[in-house]
Amino acid sequence: MIRGVGRSDEPPPSFSAVEVVTAKRDCRELTAAQIDWVVSAYARGDVADEQMSALAMAILLNGMDAAETARWTQAMIDSGEVLDFGDVGRPLVDKHSTGGVGDKITLPLAPLVAACGAAVPQLSGRGLGHTGGTLDKLESIPGWRASLDADEITAQLADVGAVICATTPTLAPADRKLYALRDVTGTVESVPLIASSIMSKKLAEGTGGLVLDVKVGSGAFMKTRARAGELAEAMTAIGAAHGLPTTALLTDMSVPLGRCVGNALEVSESVEVLRGGGPRDVVELTVALAREMLALAGITGVDPAAVLASGEAYPVWERMIAAQGGDPSAPLPVAGHVETVTADRSGVFAGADAFAVGIAAWRLGAGRARKEDPVQAAAGIRLLAAPGDEIRPGTPLLELHTDTPERLPDARRALSGAALLVTADPPEDRELVLDVRRAG
Amino acid sequence: MIRGVGRSDEPPPSFSAVEVVTAKRDCRELTAAQIDWVVSAYARGDVADEQMSALAMAILLNGMDAAETARWTQAMIDSGEVLDFGDVGRPLVDKHSTGGVGDKITLPLAPLVAACGAAVPQLSGRGLGHTGGTLDKLESIPGWRASLDADEITAQLADVGAVICATTPTLAPADRKLYALRDVTGTVESVPLIASSIMSKKLAEGTGGLVLDVKVGSGAFMKTRARAGELAEAMTAIGAAHGLPTTALLTDMSVPLGRCVGNALEVSESVEVLRGGGPRDVVELTVALAREMLALAGITGVDPAAVLASGEAYPVWERMIAAQGGDPSAPLPVAGHVETVTADRSGVFAGADAFAVGIAAWRLGAGRARKEDPVQAAAGIRLLAAPGDEIRPGTPLLELHTDTPERLPDARRALSGAALLVTADPPEDRELVLDVRRAG
Repeated sequence: MIRGVGRSDEPPPSFSAVEVVTAKRDCRELTAAQIDWVVSAYARGDVADEQMSALAMAILLNGMDAAETARWTQAMIDSGEVLDFGDVGRPLVDKHSTGGVGDKITLPLAPLVAACGAAVPQLSGRGLGHTGGTLDKLESIPGWRASLDADEITAQLADVGAVICATTPTLAPADRKLYALRDVTGTVESVPLIASSIMSKKLAEGTGGLVLDVKVGSGAFMKTRARAGELAEAMTAIGAAHGLPTTALLTDMSVPLGRCVGNALEVSESVEVLRGGGPRDVVELTVALAREMLALAGITGVDPAAVLASGEAYPVWERMIAAQGGDPSAPLPVAGHVETVTADRSGVFAGADAFAVGIAAWRLGAGRARKEDPVQAAAGIRLLAAPGDEIRPGTPLLELHTDTPERLPDARRALSGAALLVTADPPEDRELVLDVRRAG
Repeated sequence: MIRGVGRSDEPPPSFSAVEVVTAKRDCRELTAAQIDWVVSAYARGDVADEQMSALAMAILLNGMDAAETARWTQAMIDSGEVLDFGDVGRPLVDKHSTGGVGDKITLPLAPLVAACGAAVPQLSGRGLGHTGGTLDKLESIPGWRASLDADEITAQLADVGAVICATTPTLAPADRKLYALRDVTGTVESVPLIASSIMSKKLAEGTGGLVLDVKVGSGAFMKTRARAGELAEAMTAIGAAHGLPTTALLTDMSVPLGRCVGNALEVSESVEVLRGGGPRDVVELTVALAREMLALAGITGVDPAAVLASGEAYPVWERMIAAQGGDPSAPLPVAGHVETVTADRSGVFAGADAFAVGIAAWRLGAGRARKEDPVQAAAGIRLLAAPGDEIRPGTPLLELHTDTPERLPDARRALSGAALLVTADPPEDRELVLDVRRAG
């Protein structure tokens, strides 16, 4: 099930931390041996946090090339275990999103791709900051549990074809340690470090193909198409270097995905989509990602748009939720306080800024500021007006949901100013998929 | 009550460490308030080592301008006490060297400048690596003690006119902490950080004028004249910003200063110079630095060359050593093992590479690898051949002195290769003082 890290009999070469830091500081390419040493020494505590943070800053400012980044990723993988699901009777394919506001796509996508014949091992995380976490959303379903062991994952993949569960601490532990360090040292925004962090975890999961949804816009980590393109290139290059078929879509995150932002609210919207309805953009992106995943899995002759529209993916969702203890027919939590925000002028509603909505939902209790904080299952935002709607003063634009009404003023503040866009003319049609990058 | 911006009764502004790190990472100038906050927060432990090392790397790679560097220096000073010697009846003037091999200049210089009428409060450090420390050298004198309190320093300045003693941990403690961090994180080689580290300690000592001896060459920290010039500019600019008259000399460190390298050996050579003899280069540099110090002290009409040649500075040395418990007439320690290195070819001796001699002396026991290591008082190297000497195979070139003969092979290895320069033609005259930089 779990494959150990291969070890050779030769002792690996040893360096000093200062030697590795100064090499990158002075714009030299790190050697494979230096990368292997510094990552494993950091994982076991022989390289101190203050040394690794200096190295991370030197990498952020002086870069790493594709070969260094691929090796760095491998060193992260080698710091822990690598999963091997063996033969589950279907091709394995996975998706990763860099995170957005209202991005519940994993929820309909995994059952849809399973309904089309692939197996989707979707190991996920919890949310931090203004973008929600997939596990937080599913945990609003009564009884559902996020933690599965490797045997349970394998069995569920063979039986249901889709698993969404917590990633394990044994996958790329060096990355986990480094990410926490980067978070407090101003060294998050390095494309090679972001790319290797994401890819090390996905490669350690042992998937057979990977589709990346790289978000672009105010609600995304990457605010510009250029930066998102750079990240997509870096990740597909790592995939190629490791022999993992990888495709990246650059997708718009200037406005929230769908009409609902928040944990239970997004589950509810996902169920609408799985039943053949739901907002057009959620359907469109789910189908676009499913097509790429099926292509990587080598599955042809199935149209995911038709499968989704027919509702055939919904029974897979029910089985997937039930297999992890959840009751798919149980009512979802409802917020104790709901307040409607209305328009204060006339015009055409052009959309709600993704970042502002993400911050507002977070302040209502849907997200957490520190990783040990709880989240409210029912908190969040439901958009009532759709882009293109004619509005007048008093037209309802959105609802704020929370169990802690003292947070309402803070949430309203996040939505003031230019957050709710009102224009004279109807907005142009939104282009959802901006670009596609394929390895090689 | 309406409070104005920047009122002195306002609490100082507070930042997050990540905010300050990312500002410098993104090439923005740090504000005075950011610098004050980050240095004091680091000194009190509210900014973690890993955050400060990321900032140090960002400063190293993206720089700090003169205004930032002056403020950073002030913040370092403000982290501790500032000495005030009050009126000692003479103008105060101090010298700092960036460190070289055989650089014993402080030993004859302080008594010489005192003999010429100024007061020299020379707070010094111990050596680390291949360059010796002034306190290590003086501690080879039986009975001499390095630690004085502020009252003892003041009394000795008024009475003798010269003090060489240990710097106190209460001066610029933030710099002490930061220096130790930079040493293990590859962030030593930043001109603004080196300049502010040196100048914060000198400014906190409360001197009235400062002469900097910035070494250039293989045995120095700055290997090129351009880098040394950059450091000299940065330090004189800090001096100017703080109203401290500051002059920097750039001086050659491609070969050792004088004929002796090692603690007791250098004391012995310094005494020769104070008695009116000694190697020409040591005399020349001592006099050049004394002239600059006297100029800053406003003392005219005294020729330090004549004072040194006459031996008039020697009684000041005796009183300076005796005031700190040392016996200036006691025999100095002698090494248990002395080995002579001879030439293996014919030609003209062009000199010994400063770095190679420094490493060899260090390996013999004259220096330390870690700050808690002891040093051998008698270990070191005595050069026997002078540049320009005709040599043949078997001509003695230098002596290796040590109490631990098992270290001899390592020292000999450091002196192999091109360390002992033999040429066909006589070497050109060495230019000792390469440049002078004055503030403003």
